[in-house]
Amino acid sequence: MSRLSDPLPDAAPAGRLAVVGIGPGAAEWLAPAAREELALAQDIVGYTTYVELAGPFRAEQRVLDSDNRCEMERARLAFELAAQGRRVAVVSSGDPGIFAMAAAVMEALEQSHDPNWHAVELVILPGISAAQLAAARVGAPLGHDFCVLSLSNNLKPWAQIARRLEHAAQADLVIALYNPRSVARPQQFAQALDLLRIHRAPTTPVVLGRDVGRPDELVRVTTLGEVVPEQVDMRTVVIIGSSQTRLFPRLTGGNWVYTPRWYP
Amino acid sequence: MSRLSDPLPDAAPAGRLAVVGIGPGAAEWLAPAAREELALAQDIVGYTTYVELAGPFRAEQRVLDSDNRCEMERARLAFELAAQGRRVAVVSSGDPGIFAMAAAVMEALEQSHDPNWHAVELVILPGISAAQLAAARVGAPLGHDFCVLSLSNNLKPWAQIARRLEHAAQADLVIALYNPRSVARPQQFAQALDLLRIHRAPTTPVVLGRDVGRPDELVRVTTLGEVVPEQVDMRTVVIIGSSQTRLFPRLTGGNWVYTPRWYP
Repeated sequence: MSRLSDPLPDAAPAGRLAVVGIGPGAAEWLAPAAREELALAQDIVGYTTYVELAGPFRAEQRVLDSDNRCEMERARLAFELAAQGRRVAVVSSGDPGIFAMAAAVMEALEQSHDPNWHAVELVILPGISAAQLAAARVGAPLGHDFCVLSLSNNLKPWAQIARRLEHAAQADLVIALYNPRSVARPQQFAQALDLLRIHRAPTTPVVLGRDVGRPDELVRVTTLGEVVPEQVDMRTVVIIGSSQTRLFPRLTGGNWVYTPRWYP
Repeated sequence: MSRLSDPLPDAAPAGRLAVVGIGPGAAEWLAPAAREELALAQDIVGYTTYVELAGPFRAEQRVLDSDNRCEMERARLAFELAAQGRRVAVVSSGDPGIFAMAAAVMEALEQSHDPNWHAVELVILPGISAAQLAAARVGAPLGHDFCVLSLSNNLKPWAQIARRLEHAAQADLVIALYNPRSVARPQQFAQALDLLRIHRAPTTPVVLGRDVGRPDELVRVTTLGEVVPEQVDMRTVVIIGSSQTRLFPRLTGGNWVYTPRWYP
Protein backbone atom coordinates (compact mmCIF):
# COMPACT_ATOMS: atom_id res chain seq x y z
CA MET A 1 0.00 0.00 0.00
CA SER A 2 1.32 3.41 -0.84
CA ARG A 3 1.62 6.01 1.88
CA LEU A 4 1.19 9.72 1.95
CA SER A 5 4.89 10.15 2.64
CA ASP A 6 5.91 8.14 -0.44
CA PRO A 7 7.22 10.25 -3.31
CA LEU A 8 4.69 10.70 -6.10
CA PRO A 9 5.22 8.72 -9.28
CA ASP A 10 7.06 10.96 -11.73
CA ALA A 11 4.26 10.87 -14.26
CA ALA A 12 1.48 11.66 -11.77
CA PRO A 13 -0.66 14.43 -13.18
CA ALA A 14 -1.88 16.84 -10.50
CA GLY A 15 -5.34 18.03 -11.35
CA ARG A 16 -7.46 20.55 -9.53
CA LEU A 17 -10.67 20.00 -7.59
CA ALA A 18 -12.69 23.07 -6.67
CA VAL A 19 -15.76 22.71 -4.46
CA VAL A 20 -17.73 25.68 -5.70
CA GLY A 21 -20.46 27.36 -3.66
CA ILE A 22 -22.97 28.92 -6.04
CA GLY A 23 -24.95 30.56 -3.25
CA PRO A 24 -28.75 30.59 -3.35
CA GLY A 25 -28.84 29.97 -7.10
CA ALA A 26 -29.38 33.24 -8.95
CA ALA A 27 -26.36 34.54 -10.83
CA GLU A 28 -26.42 37.78 -8.82
CA TRP A 29 -25.11 35.87 -5.77
CA LEU A 30 -22.35 33.95 -7.56
CA ALA A 31 -18.97 35.34 -6.49
CA PRO A 32 -16.49 36.12 -9.28
CA ALA A 33 -14.09 33.52 -7.83
CA ALA A 34 -16.79 30.86 -8.19
CA ARG A 35 -17.77 32.01 -11.67
CA GLU A 36 -14.17 31.77 -12.80
CA GLU A 37 -13.77 28.23 -11.41
CA LEU A 38 -16.91 27.13 -13.24
CA ALA A 39 -15.67 28.72 -16.46
CA LEU A 40 -12.26 27.03 -16.28
CA ALA A 41 -13.47 23.58 -15.18
CA GLN A 42 -13.19 20.71 -17.63
CA ASP A 43 -15.54 18.50 -15.61
CA ILE A 44 -18.59 19.69 -13.69
CA VAL A 45 -19.80 17.30 -10.99
CA GLY A 46 -22.97 17.79 -8.97
CA TYR A 47 -26.61 17.22 -8.24
CA THR A 48 -28.59 17.98 -11.41
CA THR A 49 -30.63 20.83 -9.92
CA TYR A 50 -27.52 22.69 -8.75
CA VAL A 51 -25.60 22.03 -11.96
CA GLU A 52 -28.52 23.56 -13.89
CA LEU A 53 -28.45 26.62 -11.62
CA ALA A 54 -24.69 26.96 -12.12
CA GLY A 55 -24.82 26.65 -15.92
CA PRO A 56 -24.95 26.99 -18.82
CA PHE A 57 -21.63 25.36 -19.65
CA ARG A 58 -19.67 25.30 -22.88
CA ALA A 59 -19.89 22.31 -25.22
CA GLU A 60 -16.37 21.16 -24.40
CA GLN A 61 -17.06 21.08 -20.66
CA ARG A 62 -18.13 17.64 -19.45
CA VAL A 63 -21.15 17.73 -17.16
CA LEU A 64 -21.41 14.75 -14.80
CA ASP A 65 -24.63 15.47 -13.01
CA SER A 66 -26.64 12.93 -11.11
CA ASP A 67 -30.08 12.80 -9.67
CA ASN A 68 -29.67 10.97 -6.43
CA ARG A 69 -26.22 9.47 -6.16
CA CYS A 70 -24.93 10.03 -2.70
CA GLU A 71 -22.57 12.82 -1.76
CA MET A 72 -19.67 10.44 -1.10
CA GLU A 73 -19.95 8.94 -4.57
CA ARG A 74 -19.87 12.39 -6.14
CA ALA A 75 -16.87 13.33 -4.01
CA ARG A 76 -14.96 10.19 -5.04
CA LEU A 77 -15.79 10.67 -8.70
CA ALA A 78 -14.43 14.20 -8.50
CA PHE A 79 -11.15 13.01 -6.95
CA GLU A 80 -10.79 10.24 -9.54
CA LEU A 81 -11.10 12.78 -12.34
CA ALA A 82 -8.81 15.33 -10.72
CA ALA A 83 -6.23 12.63 -9.95
CA GLN A 84 -6.13 11.94 -13.69
CA GLY A 85 -5.12 15.56 -14.20
CA ARG A 86 -8.54 17.02 -14.98
CA ARG A 87 -9.70 20.39 -13.70
CA VAL A 88 -12.92 19.56 -11.82
CA ALA A 89 -15.63 21.72 -10.23
CA VAL A 90 -17.97 20.14 -7.70
CA VAL A 91 -21.06 22.33 -7.68
CA SER A 92 -22.74 22.92 -4.32
CA SER A 93 -25.68 25.14 -3.53
CA GLY A 94 -25.29 27.74 -0.82
CA ASP A 95 -21.98 27.45 1.00
CA PRO A 96 -20.35 24.03 0.41
CA GLY A 97 -18.96 24.29 3.95
CA ILE A 98 -22.42 24.45 5.57
CA PHE A 99 -24.38 21.19 5.32
CA ALA A 100 -23.15 20.67 1.78
CA MET A 101 -20.44 19.03 -0.31
CA ALA A 102 -17.21 20.20 1.36
CA ALA A 103 -17.43 17.79 4.33
CA ALA A 104 -18.08 14.85 1.99
CA VAL A 105 -15.08 15.81 -0.14
CA MET A 106 -12.86 16.00 2.95
CA GLU A 107 -14.14 12.66 4.19
CA ALA A 108 -13.43 11.03 0.82
CA LEU A 109 -9.89 12.43 0.85
CA GLU A 110 -9.15 11.35 4.43
CA GLN A 111 -10.32 7.81 3.67
CA SER A 112 -8.17 7.54 0.55
CA HIS A 113 -4.65 6.13 0.55
CA ASP A 114 -4.09 7.05 -3.09
CA PRO A 115 -1.25 9.59 -3.18
CA ASN A 116 -2.63 10.95 -6.45
CA TRP A 117 -5.80 12.02 -4.66
CA HIS A 118 -3.76 13.79 -1.99
CA ALA A 119 -1.68 15.50 -4.70
CA VAL A 120 -4.81 17.09 -6.22
CA GLU A 121 -4.91 20.87 -5.81
CA LEU A 122 -8.04 21.13 -3.64
CA VAL A 123 -9.80 24.43 -3.06
CA ILE A 124 -13.13 25.22 -1.45
CA LEU A 125 -14.99 28.35 -2.49
CA PRO A 126 -17.56 29.52 0.05
CA GLY A 127 -20.94 30.86 -1.00
CA ILE A 128 -23.90 32.62 0.60
CA SER A 129 -25.92 30.07 2.54
CA ALA A 130 -29.73 29.97 2.56
CA ALA A 131 -30.08 31.30 6.13
CA GLN A 132 -28.04 34.37 5.23
CA LEU A 133 -30.27 35.41 2.34
CA ALA A 134 -33.47 34.52 4.23
CA ALA A 135 -32.25 36.70 7.09
CA ALA A 136 -31.39 39.58 4.74
CA ARG A 137 -34.86 39.49 3.19
CA VAL A 138 -36.53 40.30 6.52
CA GLY A 139 -33.91 42.44 8.29
CA ALA A 140 -31.23 41.04 10.58
CA PRO A 141 -32.47 38.11 12.66
CA LEU A 142 -28.92 36.69 12.79
CA GLY A 143 -27.57 40.02 14.04
CA HIS A 144 -26.38 38.53 17.32
CA ASP A 145 -25.14 35.14 18.56
CA PHE A 146 -26.78 32.24 16.69
CA CYS A 147 -26.46 28.58 15.86
CA VAL A 148 -27.03 26.58 12.70
CA LEU A 149 -28.46 23.09 13.14
CA SER A 150 -29.65 20.41 10.76
CA LEU A 151 -32.81 18.64 11.90
CA SER A 152 -32.14 15.66 9.64
CA ASN A 153 -31.51 12.45 11.53
CA ASN A 154 -30.28 10.58 8.47
CA LEU A 155 -26.70 10.83 9.76
CA LYS A 156 -27.11 11.62 13.46
CA PRO A 157 -29.38 10.32 16.21
CA TRP A 158 -32.47 12.35 17.13
CA ALA A 159 -31.36 12.34 20.78
CA GLN A 160 -28.31 14.40 19.80
CA ILE A 161 -30.45 16.82 17.80
CA ALA A 162 -32.83 17.25 20.74
CA ARG A 163 -29.91 17.80 23.09
CA ARG A 164 -28.51 20.52 20.87
CA LEU A 165 -31.89 22.21 20.56
CA GLU A 166 -32.28 22.13 24.33
CA HIS A 167 -28.88 23.77 24.90
CA ALA A 168 -29.43 26.31 22.12
CA ALA A 169 -32.76 27.23 23.71
CA GLN A 170 -31.22 27.55 27.18
CA ALA A 171 -28.36 29.63 25.77
CA ASP A 172 -30.97 31.96 24.22
CA LEU A 173 -29.30 31.66 20.81
CA VAL A 174 -31.10 32.51 17.60
CA ILE A 175 -31.51 29.15 15.84
CA ALA A 176 -31.31 28.54 12.09
CA LEU A 177 -32.67 25.14 11.12
CA TYR A 178 -31.66 23.39 7.89
CA ASN A 179 -33.45 20.30 6.51
CA PRO A 180 -36.28 20.98 8.97
CA ARG A 181 -38.88 18.54 7.69
CA SER A 182 -39.22 15.90 5.01
CA VAL A 183 -41.88 13.53 3.80
CA ALA A 184 -39.97 10.67 5.42
CA ARG A 185 -39.80 12.38 8.84
CA PRO A 186 -42.71 14.82 9.09
CA GLN A 187 -42.89 14.78 12.88
CA GLN A 188 -39.46 16.10 13.88
CA PHE A 189 -40.01 19.76 13.17
CA ALA A 190 -43.14 19.56 15.33
CA GLN A 191 -41.06 17.97 18.09
CA ALA A 192 -38.49 20.73 17.77
CA LEU A 193 -41.23 23.36 18.07
CA ASP A 194 -42.63 21.63 21.17
CA LEU A 195 -39.18 21.73 22.76
CA LEU A 196 -38.51 25.37 21.87
CA ARG A 197 -41.96 26.49 23.07
CA ILE A 198 -41.01 25.41 26.59
CA HIS A 199 -38.23 28.01 26.61
CA ARG A 200 -39.43 30.83 24.36
CA ALA A 201 -42.52 33.02 24.27
CA PRO A 202 -45.27 32.50 21.66
CA THR A 203 -44.43 36.00 20.36
CA THR A 204 -40.87 34.92 19.42
CA PRO A 205 -40.33 35.86 15.75
CA VAL A 206 -39.91 32.99 13.29
CA VAL A 207 -38.74 33.38 9.69
CA LEU A 208 -39.57 30.77 7.05
CA GLY A 209 -37.54 31.05 3.86
CA ARG A 210 -38.47 28.66 1.03
CA ASP A 211 -36.45 28.50 -2.21
CA VAL A 212 -34.75 31.74 -1.17
CA GLY A 213 -33.03 33.43 -4.10
CA ARG A 214 -34.89 31.34 -6.67
CA PRO A 215 -37.89 32.24 -8.82
CA ASP A 216 -40.39 30.65 -6.43
CA GLU A 217 -38.95 32.34 -3.33
CA LEU A 218 -41.40 32.66 -0.44
CA VAL A 219 -40.22 34.30 2.78
CA ARG A 220 -42.68 34.61 5.63
CA VAL A 221 -42.43 36.14 9.08
CA THR A 222 -44.52 34.44 11.73
CA THR A 223 -44.14 33.62 15.43
CA LEU A 224 -43.33 30.58 17.52
CA GLY A 225 -46.96 30.56 18.70
CA GLU A 226 -48.41 30.63 15.20
CA VAL A 227 -46.06 28.59 13.01
CA VAL A 228 -47.42 25.20 11.96
CA PRO A 229 -45.25 22.35 10.68
CA GLU A 230 -47.14 22.17 7.37
CA GLN A 231 -45.67 25.57 6.40
CA VAL A 232 -42.22 23.98 6.27
CA ASP A 233 -40.50 21.42 4.04
CA MET A 234 -36.97 20.37 2.99
CA ARG A 235 -36.59 23.44 0.78
CA THR A 236 -37.30 25.75 3.73
CA VAL A 237 -34.79 27.29 6.10
CA VAL A 238 -36.28 28.27 9.46
CA ILE A 239 -34.91 31.00 11.74
CA ILE A 240 -36.23 31.09 15.29
CA GLY A 241 -35.53 34.26 17.25
CA SER A 242 -33.97 34.57 20.69
CA SER A 243 -35.75 36.29 23.60
CA GLN A 244 -34.32 39.56 22.23
CA THR A 245 -35.34 39.23 18.57
CA ARG A 246 -37.77 41.99 17.61
CA LEU A 247 -40.54 42.54 15.07
CA PHE A 248 -41.80 45.87 13.81
CA PRO A 249 -44.11 46.82 10.97
CA ARG A 250 -42.85 47.27 7.45
CA LEU A 251 -44.52 50.07 5.52
CA THR A 252 -45.06 47.82 2.51
CA GLY A 253 -46.75 45.16 4.65
CA GLY A 254 -45.55 42.44 6.98
CA ASN A 255 -42.79 42.93 9.50
CA TRP A 256 -39.10 43.54 9.77
CA VAL A 257 -37.22 41.20 12.13
CA TYR A 258 -33.91 41.79 13.82
CA THR A 259 -31.85 40.69 16.79
CA PRO A 260 -30.22 43.70 18.48
CA ARG A 261 -26.47 43.92 18.79
CA TRP A 262 -26.76 44.32 22.55
CA TYR A 263 -27.95 42.01 25.31
CA PRO A 264 -29.56 43.48 28.44
CA MET B 1 -45.88 63.31 16.14
CA SER B 2 -46.44 61.51 12.87
CA ARG B 3 -47.26 57.84 12.90
CA LEU B 4 -46.37 55.03 10.58
CA SER B 5 -50.02 54.74 9.53
CA ASP B 6 -50.23 58.40 8.47
CA PRO B 7 -50.19 58.92 4.71
CA LEU B 8 -46.86 60.12 3.41
CA PRO B 9 -46.53 63.76 2.42
CA ASP B 10 -47.16 64.03 -1.31
CA ALA B 11 -43.72 65.42 -1.99
CA ALA B 12 -41.84 62.84 0.02
CA PRO B 13 -39.00 61.46 -2.03
CA ALA B 14 -38.47 57.74 -1.47
CA GLY B 15 -34.78 56.96 -1.67
CA ARG B 16 -33.07 53.63 -1.41
CA LEU B 17 -30.80 52.31 1.31
CA ALA B 18 -28.81 49.17 0.56
CA VAL B 19 -26.74 47.56 3.28
CA VAL B 20 -24.08 45.93 1.14
CA GLY B 21 -21.98 42.99 2.27
CA ILE B 22 -18.66 43.09 0.49
CA GLY B 23 -17.52 39.76 1.92
CA PRO B 24 -13.93 39.29 3.09
CA GLY B 25 -12.66 42.24 1.05
CA ALA B 26 -11.13 41.01 -2.19
CA ALA B 27 -13.14 41.71 -5.33
CA GLU B 28 -13.32 37.99 -6.13
CA TRP B 29 -15.81 37.53 -3.24
CA LEU B 30 -18.05 40.50 -4.07
CA ALA B 31 -21.37 39.20 -5.42
CA PRO B 32 -22.65 40.82 -8.62
CA ALA B 33 -25.73 42.08 -6.73
CA ALA B 34 -23.45 43.92 -4.29
CA ARG B 35 -21.22 45.27 -7.05
CA GLU B 36 -24.25 46.68 -8.85
CA GLU B 37 -25.54 48.41 -5.70
CA LEU B 38 -22.15 49.99 -5.14
CA ALA B 39 -22.02 51.13 -8.76
CA LEU B 40 -25.49 52.72 -8.65
CA ALA B 41 -25.19 54.35 -5.21
CA GLN B 42 -25.02 58.12 -5.02
CA ASP B 43 -23.80 58.09 -1.41
CA ILE B 44 -21.42 55.54 0.08
CA VAL B 45 -21.49 55.33 3.88
CA GLY B 46 -19.15 53.22 5.95
CA TYR B 47 -16.07 52.64 8.03
CA THR B 48 -13.07 53.93 6.07
CA THR B 49 -11.28 50.56 5.85
CA TYR B 50 -14.33 48.84 4.36
CA VAL B 51 -15.13 51.72 2.01
CA GLU B 52 -11.57 51.49 0.68
CA LEU B 53 -11.99 47.75 0.14
CA ALA B 54 -15.29 48.35 -1.69
CA GLY B 55 -13.96 51.10 -3.97
CA PRO B 56 -12.80 52.76 -6.07
CA PHE B 57 -15.86 54.95 -6.65
CA ARG B 58 -16.61 57.41 -9.42
CA ALA B 59 -16.01 61.12 -8.92
CA GLU B 60 -19.74 61.90 -8.77
CA GLN B 61 -20.34 59.36 -5.99
CA ARG B 62 -20.22 60.95 -2.54
CA VAL B 63 -18.14 58.94 -0.07
CA LEU B 64 -19.08 59.52 3.58
CA ASP B 65 -16.58 57.37 5.35
CA SER B 66 -15.66 57.71 8.98
CA ASP B 67 -12.95 56.39 11.17
CA ASN B 68 -14.63 55.66 14.43
CA ARG B 69 -18.15 57.03 14.49
CA CYS B 70 -20.44 54.45 15.96
CA GLU B 71 -22.59 52.10 13.93
CA MET B 72 -25.83 53.80 15.01
CA GLU B 73 -24.62 57.17 13.77
CA ARG B 74 -23.71 55.69 10.41
CA ALA B 75 -27.11 53.99 10.19
CA ARG B 76 -28.95 57.24 10.97
CA LEU B 77 -26.89 59.21 8.49
CA ALA B 78 -27.75 56.67 5.81
CA PHE B 79 -31.48 56.96 6.55
CA GLU B 80 -31.33 60.75 6.54
CA LEU B 81 -29.77 60.71 3.10
CA ALA B 82 -32.11 58.07 1.70
CA ALA B 83 -35.14 59.87 3.16
CA GLN B 84 -34.09 62.89 1.08
CA GLY B 85 -34.37 60.70 -2.00
CA ARG B 86 -30.73 59.69 -2.33
CA ARG B 87 -29.60 56.22 -3.35
CA VAL B 88 -27.35 55.14 -0.47
CA ALA B 89 -25.06 52.15 0.05
CA VAL B 90 -23.93 51.30 3.56
CA VAL B 91 -20.76 49.27 3.16
CA SER B 92 -20.24 46.37 5.56
CA SER B 93 -17.45 43.84 5.59
CA GLY B 94 -18.38 40.17 5.53
CA ASP B 95 -22.11 39.60 5.85
CA PRO B 96 -23.89 42.72 7.17
CA GLY B 97 -26.34 40.38 8.90
CA ILE B 98 -23.62 38.71 11.02
CA PHE B 99 -22.14 41.00 13.69
CA ALA B 100 -22.20 43.91 11.27
CA MET B 101 -24.25 46.87 10.06
CA ALA B 102 -27.66 45.33 9.31
CA ALA B 103 -28.77 45.09 12.95
CA ALA B 104 -27.76 48.73 13.58
CA VAL B 105 -29.73 49.83 10.52
CA MET B 106 -32.80 47.93 11.72
CA GLU B 107 -32.47 49.39 15.20
CA ALA B 108 -32.23 52.92 13.80
CA LEU B 109 -35.34 52.35 11.72
CA GLU B 110 -37.37 50.86 14.56
CA GLN B 111 -36.51 53.81 16.81
CA SER B 112 -37.51 56.37 14.20
CA HIS B 113 -40.98 57.87 13.98
CA ASP B 114 -40.16 59.70 10.74
CA PRO B 115 -42.43 58.25 8.03
CA ASN B 116 -39.88 59.26 5.41
CA TRP B 117 -37.39 56.86 6.97
CA HIS B 118 -39.94 54.05 6.87
CA ALA B 119 -40.74 54.87 3.24
CA VAL B 120 -37.13 54.31 2.19
CA GLU B 121 -36.65 51.26 0.01
CA LEU B 122 -34.43 49.20 2.31
CA VAL B 123 -32.54 46.16 1.07
CA ILE B 124 -29.86 44.06 2.74
CA LEU B 125 -27.36 42.20 0.58
CA PRO B 126 -25.64 39.30 2.34
CA GLY B 127 -21.96 38.56 1.88
CA ILE B 128 -19.51 35.83 2.77
CA SER B 129 -18.60 36.14 6.43
CA ALA B 130 -15.07 35.69 7.78
CA ALA B 131 -15.76 32.30 9.39
CA GLN B 132 -16.95 30.91 6.06
CA LEU B 133 -13.76 31.78 4.19
CA ALA B 134 -11.52 30.74 7.11
CA ALA B 135 -13.34 27.39 7.15
CA ALA B 136 -12.96 26.96 3.39
CA ARG B 137 -9.22 27.61 3.57
CA VAL B 138 -8.67 24.57 5.81
CA GLY B 139 -11.42 22.18 4.70
CA ALA B 140 -14.88 22.02 6.25
CA PRO B 141 -14.79 22.62 10.02
CA LEU B 142 -18.35 24.05 9.85
CA GLY B 143 -19.58 20.96 8.01
CA HIS B 144 -21.96 20.03 10.80
CA ASP B 145 -23.98 21.85 13.49
CA PHE B 146 -22.22 25.00 14.71
CA CYS B 147 -22.73 28.29 16.50
CA VAL B 148 -21.41 31.78 15.89
CA LEU B 149 -20.68 33.86 18.99
CA SER B 150 -19.13 37.26 19.58
CA LEU B 151 -16.80 37.39 22.57
CA SER B 152 -17.08 41.16 22.84
CA ASN B 153 -18.71 42.34 26.03
CA ASN B 154 -19.11 45.91 24.81
CA LEU B 155 -22.83 45.35 24.32
CA LYS B 156 -23.56 42.26 26.40
CA PRO B 157 -22.54 41.08 29.86
CA TRP B 158 -19.69 38.57 30.15
CA ALA B 159 -21.94 36.29 32.22
CA GLN B 160 -24.19 35.83 29.19
CA ILE B 161 -21.20 35.09 26.96
CA ALA B 162 -19.90 32.51 29.43
CA ARG B 163 -23.36 30.95 29.66
CA ARG B 164 -23.55 30.61 25.88
CA LEU B 165 -20.06 29.12 25.68
CA GLU B 166 -20.98 26.62 28.38
CA HIS B 167 -24.12 25.49 26.54
CA ALA B 168 -22.34 25.40 23.18
CA ALA B 169 -19.65 23.21 24.74
CA GLN B 170 -22.19 20.87 26.32
CA ALA B 171 -24.11 20.67 23.04
CA ASP B 172 -20.85 19.65 21.31
CA LEU B 173 -21.31 22.35 18.68
CA VAL B 174 -18.45 23.63 16.57
CA ILE B 175 -17.93 27.21 17.78
CA ALA B 176 -16.95 30.18 15.61
CA LEU B 177 -15.81 33.15 17.68
CA TYR B 178 -15.91 36.71 16.35
CA ASN B 179 -14.19 39.65 18.09
CA PRO B 180 -12.27 37.15 20.21
CA ARG B 181 -9.74 39.44 21.84
CA SER B 182 -8.91 43.13 21.93
CA VAL B 183 -6.33 45.34 23.59
CA ALA B 184 -9.03 46.59 25.94
CA ARG B 185 -10.08 43.09 27.03
CA PRO B 186 -7.12 40.75 26.54
CA GLN B 187 -8.23 38.22 29.16
CA GLN B 188 -11.59 37.04 27.80
CA PHE B 189 -10.35 34.75 25.08
CA ALA B 190 -8.17 33.05 27.69
CA GLN B 191 -11.25 32.67 29.91
CA ALA B 192 -13.18 31.20 26.99
CA LEU B 193 -10.37 28.70 26.36
CA ASP B 194 -10.33 27.73 30.05
CA LEU B 195 -14.06 27.04 29.89
CA LEU B 196 -13.91 25.05 26.66
CA ARG B 197 -10.93 22.98 27.85
CA ILE B 198 -13.12 21.56 30.61
CA HIS B 199 -15.39 20.02 27.97
CA ARG B 200 -13.16 19.26 25.00
CA ALA B 201 -9.94 17.30 24.51
CA PRO B 202 -6.58 19.05 24.01
CA THR B 203 -6.47 17.46 20.55
CA THR B 204 -9.62 19.35 19.43
CA PRO B 205 -8.77 21.18 16.18
CA VAL B 206 -8.73 24.98 16.32
CA VAL B 207 -8.58 27.25 13.26
CA LEU B 208 -7.27 30.81 13.51
CA GLY B 209 -8.07 33.02 10.53
CA ARG B 210 -6.58 36.51 10.54
CA ASP B 211 -7.41 39.04 7.80
CA VAL B 212 -8.91 36.21 5.78
CA GLY B 213 -9.32 37.14 2.13
CA ARG B 214 -7.00 40.15 2.43
CA PRO B 215 -3.35 40.50 1.39
CA ASP B 216 -2.05 39.76 4.89
CA GLU B 217 -4.18 36.64 5.33
CA LEU B 218 -2.84 34.16 7.87
CA VAL B 219 -4.78 30.97 8.52
CA ARG B 220 -3.39 28.53 11.05
CA VAL B 221 -4.56 25.13 12.24
CA THR B 222 -3.73 24.33 15.84
CA THR B 223 -5.41 22.53 18.73
CA LEU B 224 -7.26 23.48 21.88
CA GLY B 225 -4.29 22.24 23.88
CA GLU B 226 -1.75 24.32 21.99
CA VAL B 227 -3.49 27.58 21.09
CA VAL B 228 -2.31 30.59 23.10
CA PRO B 229 -4.29 33.83 23.42
CA GLU B 230 -1.46 35.90 21.98
CA GLN B 231 -2.05 34.25 18.57
CA VAL B 232 -5.45 35.96 18.40
CA ASP B 233 -6.65 39.56 18.04
CA MET B 234 -9.73 41.48 16.87
CA ARG B 235 -8.94 40.75 13.22
CA THR B 236 -8.96 37.00 13.88
CA VAL B 237 -11.88 34.63 13.62
CA VAL B 238 -11.49 31.48 15.70
CA ILE B 239 -13.14 28.14 14.94
CA ILE B 240 -13.08 25.53 17.69
CA GLY B 241 -13.98 22.01 16.66
CA SER B 242 -16.53 19.68 18.23
CA SER B 243 -15.60 16.26 19.62
CA GLN B 244 -16.06 14.95 16.05
CA THR B 245 -13.92 17.48 14.17
CA ARG B 246 -10.96 15.79 12.50
CA LEU B 247 -7.47 16.71 11.37
CA PHE B 248 -5.42 14.94 8.71
CA PRO B 249 -2.18 15.83 6.96
CA ARG B 250 -2.13 18.01 3.89
CA LEU B 251 0.43 17.01 1.28
CA THR B 252 1.65 20.62 0.96
CA GLY B 253 2.14 20.91 4.73
CA GLY B 254 -0.11 21.51 7.69
CA ASN B 255 -3.45 19.84 8.13
CA TRP B 256 -6.91 19.70 6.66
CA VAL B 257 -9.77 20.08 9.18
CA TYR B 258 -13.36 18.98 8.80
CA THR B 259 -16.40 18.07 10.83
CA PRO B 260 -18.08 14.95 9.41
CA ARG B 261 -21.68 15.09 8.22
CA TRP B 262 -22.58 12.25 10.57
CA TYR B 263 -22.69 11.93 14.35
CA PRO B 264 -22.02 8.56 15.99
